[in-house]
Amino acid sequence: MTTEAMLLHYIYLVAIVAEAMSGAIMGMRRGMDLFGLCLVGTVTALGGGSIRDMLLGHYPLGWVAHPLYLAFTITAALVTAMLARHVHRLRILFLLVDGLGLVAFSILGCDIALGVGVHPAVAVVFGMITGIFGGVLRDILCNEIPLVLRREMYASVSLVTGAIYVGLHKLGTDPGEALLMALGTGCVFRALAIRFKWELPGFSGTGIRGFE
Amino acid sequence: MTTEAMLLHYIYLVAIVAEAMSGAIMGMRRGMDLFGLCLVGTVTALGGGSIRDMLLGHYPLGWVAHPLYLAFTITAALVTAMLARHVHRLRILFLLVDGLGLVAFSILGCDIALGVGVHPAVAVVFGMITGIFGGVLRDILCNEIPLVLRREMYASVSLVTGAIYVGLHKLGTDPGEALLMALGTGCVFRALAIRFKWELPGFSGTGIRGFE
Amino acid sequence: MTTEAMLLHYIYLVAIVAEAMSGAIMGMRRGMDLFGLCLVGTVTALGGGSIRDMLLGHYPLGWVAHPLYLAFTITAALVTAMLARHVHRLRILFLLVDGLGLVAFSILGCDIALGVGVHPAVAVVFGMITGIFGGVLRDILCNEIPLVLRREMYASVSLVTGAIYVGLHKLGTDPGEALLMALGTGCVFRALAIRFKWELPGFSGTGIRGFE
Repeated sequence: MTTEAMLLHYIYLVAIVAEAMSGAIMGMRRGMDLFGLCLVGTVTALGGGSIRDMLLGHYPLGWVAHPLYLAFTITAALVTAMLARHVHRLRILFLLVDGLGLVAFSILGCDIALGVGVHPAVAVVFGMITGIFGGVLRDILCNEIPLVLRREMYASVSLVTGAIYVGLHKLGTDPGEALLMALGTGCVFRALAIRFKWELPGFSGTGIRGFE
Repeated sequence: MTTEAMLLHYIYLVAIVAEAMSGAIMGMRRGMDLFGLCLVGTVTALGGGSIRDMLLGHYPLGWVAHPLYLAFTITAALVTAMLARHVHRLRILFLLVDGLGLVAFSILGCDIALGVGVHPAVAVVFGMITGIFGGVLRDILCNEIPLVLRREMYASVSLVTGAIYVGLHKLGTDPGEALLMALGTGCVFRALAIRFKWELPGFSGTGIRGFE
Repeated sequence: MTTEAMLLHYIYLVAIVAEAMSGAIMGMRRGMDLFGLCLVGTVTALGGGSIRDMLLGHYPLGWVAHPLYLAFTITAALVTAMLARHVHRLRILFLLVDGLGLVAFSILGCDIALGVGVHPAVAVVFGMITGIFGGVLRDILCNEIPLVLRREMYASVSLVTGAIYVGLHKLGTDPGEALLMALGTGCVFRALAIRFKWELPGFSGTGIRGFE
């Protein structure tokens, strides 16, 4: 394994832990039991990649080949449940790790899609699917309109990260450099979006009548 | 490409635009941002076919092989957002184009399933999955009970269209004639269902206690 | 076909009928029309196995190869609709048949996953996916937080059943004996869980602020 691949692998493990924690936190707020927390945490962490692989026909899925990923996400959900009273103090740390996870997921998704041989624009879309669909599934399981559809630059971070990574790849840049540049830009973008509360224009739903 | 295949292809493009608009309209009414509109529009337009292909193991998916479809659905969602104030004036046009899309999706779904070699009854089911599951995903993303499960003859139109198409196919009818007959019958059926507000019997939920 | 395989097959047919009925009952309580009941019933009965097969890349899916399964689930939904006024009297019978279905689904899911060659722990997870994801899809279609995430030992029954079945399989036990032992233990566990209302600890959502 190259240094870049190892780096990305470790970031991936951090990312699925962060995503599993975000799922478990949402589940706790909905009054789920311990099993529910573990399931929602696992779906949040591994769901985006699973949807990507099913859409691509890319088998076996990551967690099917590496069951250890399941141990990571279930442990993360259980630890979150134990630390529930204290976890809100870590909000900023959590947001940063979650942002790192989003960026790492996006790069990994692009990488796998490029490996399957899809068009570069489609690879960026698969990066975004990997990055955000875990959270979409989490919100559907928790009976919410997915947060990513309503607020924040979450998806934009994923698209920009993926576009940089795929673009550099197509320009023939060294894979390690492409990885670091995409990772760095994505994380800075996400941190700025959190800091300055950037948002895309939304629609209040007024003036759109006649479609009852 | 035969004339029939070209006709169906153009109708397909019209259909995904109509479906993307229906997704974007629903998203606007839920206060989504621009990204959310594009995602919900795209999922509405391409989600039914994607579920069909994943259930069949039929790879690559249409939009993975033809990224232009994504450009169509995203553009349709953005244009819908720009025209939001005026779009309700087009309600009848929209319903008709949407009905055309449903019928075209159903025929295409049957066609692909027959090509994979499934039982004719299963092909009709795949036509229906292609026709209605985009809307089901749209409603799930918008946190609604899917409309197709509660009202209108939407699914019936899909089943009748598919049954005619698959039946004529099995009888050895010329593909072009089968296409036109299924297309025509489906569109007339849908127009009549809209005009006369046909509905299947529903259940009010009363008298079904004891299953809390 | 061996006696064990035949037994499991018949239990499977009973199970999809029970699951289709549970879907139809939930759909009736949401005011769905006849088509909606049939669709929700079918998704509840066949959805867990379909998700399992898509995650494994195990094609063709059961109901694609055996369209008769669709006839079973649709008939079960229609009969449930006709018997709606009387069906609550059968609550205990229904819970028992539903429990039998859960256990049978779990064993079948493990069996198929082991056949694909996954790690034993992953096989148990696929047993659980087969057992509970039909109900998860049912609750998502009915716009509910999935029941399995909030209450009852439903998922635990599936995991225990799967662990016993996969464990005995790995120890080289005769397949028929492994089946009967897993089936028996699972059913007794489920019956006890219903009788004594066993629950895993839940979270009320208090004290988890700061993640708005």
